[in-house]
Amino acid sequence: MKKKVLKFGGTSVGTIERIQHVSNIIKGEVEAGNQIIVVVSAMAGKTNELIKFSQDIDKNFDKRELDVLLSTGEQVTCSLLAGALIGLKIKSKSWLNWQIPILTEGEHSNARIINMNVSKINEYIKEGVAIVPGFQGVSKKGEITTIGRGGSDATAVAIAKLFNADSCEIYTDVDGVFSTDPNKIPVAKKIEKISYDEMLELSSLGAKVMQSSAVQTAMMYDIPLEVKSTFTNRKGTKIFDQQNIDYTKSVTGVAYSKDDAKITLIGVEDKPGVAANIFEPLNKSQINVDMVIQNISSDQKKTDITFTIKRDDLVKTKDILKNNKSIKFREITHNDKVSKISIVGAGMVSTPGVTYKMFRGLADEKINILAISTSEIKLSVIINEENTLKAVKKLHTIFELD
Amino acid sequence: MKKKVLKFGGTSVGTIERIQHVSNIIKGEVEAGNQIIVVVSAMAGKTNELIKFSQDIDKNFDKRELDVLLSTGEQVTCSLLAGALIGLKIKSKSWLNWQIPILTEGEHSNARIINMNVSKINEYIKEGVAIVPGFQGVSKKGEITTIGRGGSDATAVAIAKLFNADSCEIYTDVDGVFSTDPNKIPVAKKIEKISYDEMLELSSLGAKVMQSSAVQTAMMYDIPLEVKSTFTNRKGTKIFDQQNIDYTKSVTGVAYSKDDAKITLIGVEDKPGVAANIFEPLNKSQINVDMVIQNISSDQKKTDITFTIKRDDLVKTKDILKNNKSIKFREITHNDKVSKISIVGAGMVSTPGVTYKMFRGLADEKINILAISTSEIKLSVIINEENTLKAVKKLHTIFELD
Repeated sequence: MKKKVLKFGGTSVGTIERIQHVSNIIKGEVEAGNQIIVVVSAMAGKTNELIKFSQDIDKNFDKRELDVLLSTGEQVTCSLLAGALIGLKIKSKSWLNWQIPILTEGEHSNARIINMNVSKINEYIKEGVAIVPGFQGVSKKGEITTIGRGGSDATAVAIAKLFNADSCEIYTDVDGVFSTDPNKIPVAKKIEKISYDEMLELSSLGAKVMQSSAVQTAMMYDIPLEVKSTFTNRKGTKIFDQQNIDYTKSVTGVAYSKDDAKITLIGVEDKPGVAANIFEPLNKSQINVDMVIQNISSDQKKTDITFTIKRDDLVKTKDILKNNKSIKFREITHNDKVSKISIVGAGMVSTPGVTYKMFRGLADEKINILAISTSEIKLSVIINEENTLKAVKKLHTIFELD
Repeated sequence: MKKKVLKFGGTSVGTIERIQHVSNIIKGEVEAGNQIIVVVSAMAGKTNELIKFSQDIDKNFDKRELDVLLSTGEQVTCSLLAGALIGLKIKSKSWLNWQIPILTEGEHSNARIINMNVSKINEYIKEGVAIVPGFQGVSKKGEITTIGRGGSDATAVAIAKLFNADSCEIYTDVDGVFSTDPNKIPVAKKIEKISYDEMLELSSLGAKVMQSSAVQTAMMYDIPLEVKSTFTNRKGTKIFDQQNIDYTKSVTGVAYSKDDAKITLIGVEDKPGVAANIFEPLNKSQINVDMVIQNISSDQKKTDITFTIKRDDLVKTKDILKNNKSIKFREITHNDKVSKISIVGAGMVSTPGVTYKMFRGLADEKINILAISTSEIKLSVIINEENTLKAVKKLHTIFELD
């Protein structure tokens, strides 16, 4: 008998039929003798609908009331799923954030789960399935809060940790984590096992299977995860600590992000504090800076700084840089049609020649590399956007992922 | 400065624009220096949508989970309205059933409000508007409950009582209580003042302006009510104790109900327990019996019993009566195309000739009376359905209500 946390995302519970389908998955787990805590998201589209309501009322809708509003989405799913299980003669009950309670701290719309009362639910799951709303909790003052980044995934991981669960299964609308985007590159393969670090690199690169902060929490407390599809019976992707994985391949996956723009400041003074002066005002304007590369400039005692941002932020970013008197540079250039291609793999560090192999592969396809950035388990290059798919396919092939 | 309870029904908060309109009504009350507690219903159509979800999952959807589900409807309205007020720079806050708490007892889907913590909200309304969800509460065990008949009106009346409010204003989509159905009889007039009893008779006869059980509670604790329109500035109808009303007219209103059927059992044994034997099985089958009239039969030591039911229940009712061995009668007849016309007025009892006047009026229109039933403030007749509007118009005119 295992204690399992099962999390079902918005598309998995997006219709009545899907909620009934999910109730049958849970029934199977109960009949296999497992103790089950289920975490659910709001039905797909519901949260956006509620946000639109609030925006139509007030562009700066009060954050406390927004949390009260949004928390109803998961509450609806909880009750419908519990009712569906009861209809299948499986004892079940919805547990609302204040009934458990799920204690949070921090600001409205961006709170963190800090504790949970486990005794009542631990008693209950001996005979029934507990259904818990994701994405929310209650503050020490008794106010409803929602947890920002991580959402229901974060709730599932927190429950797995606090209840000391044997596994945490993230049911979603894809079969698992893929070696690259299966919608664009048909030879993409599902990854059976992946480390937390690799998952983090892949998910931050656009493979949005799980929220990054939830993966980070799982990594921190060493909680094994499994991402799998609600709609097929196929095995999913297991995510756990690097040391539990035998690496037969140096590269686990190829990720890419589009809609990027690259800015280069040429001839920046090479002295302490310059980078801070550049990026502080961008951060204040909520411009998300991705890759940053600094090189020696052809000018003496000067340096060139290149960074990437989302294309939508290009005009704003250039305005800020030009109008900021504390930043001195000779010239500013940009390229607004670039993409970032990354190879990710925990095995890279121990495999010589990965870097060379990547550059050679791109050269064979006559793809020019505009910038390079490396970390222990990731190697990213910026290229012209038109070459994105060609580059991904080539790298996927040469690193034997097809 | 007054302490006011304002209740807004489903159509009053049915769209974002209407919620904004309601927030302006409340703003006006605050600026007039009043302390305000607002009770809201779910947005029009929302509760039915959620009930349909539950029914699609399971025809016998679990009642505990149904309460968890339905309570989200009012929670959504609460947060949107509080947000709208904050947008107008009016301090405001939603108070959920468990945050107050609103304590209930009784079964799921049919609970009753028994108490409420008043101190926190009494403190809060000195500086802000408290928004409370109607139709719901929390049991002593901490389970969400909904209150059946009476819904949000009952919440408003309970709050007015427990908070010792100066007034309880029921905002709805009509201008108030009318002397008869204004949609069918254009000369219908809005009633300025009406007693609880009259209101009860009128509302149970189809003038669904307020839920009967809420009116009953108001009557029991002598809480003055006012029913008024959210969408006009016109004065509404005040509802209070009979002794506070000067009756210049014997009849206050003419009500009618359609879709009725009349059943007569001829030659029933005239002995104790017979009526109980007839109506007990009907009650068990949830058939709502309205008027009951018992007469001496032409048979010796026998009696005739006539009663009315909703037309939809006719077949079921006849089956039950025919198959029940404990009920003996000679013959069963029915008329499935009848309607009930009632004149209601607390002044009737002190005005001689009202009964005669009614019968004469109907006779002048050549309308045959099939059955008669009277109470202190009401006189009802059953007639053929085709004569309904003709009868209502005639009575409305002769009792000087036009």
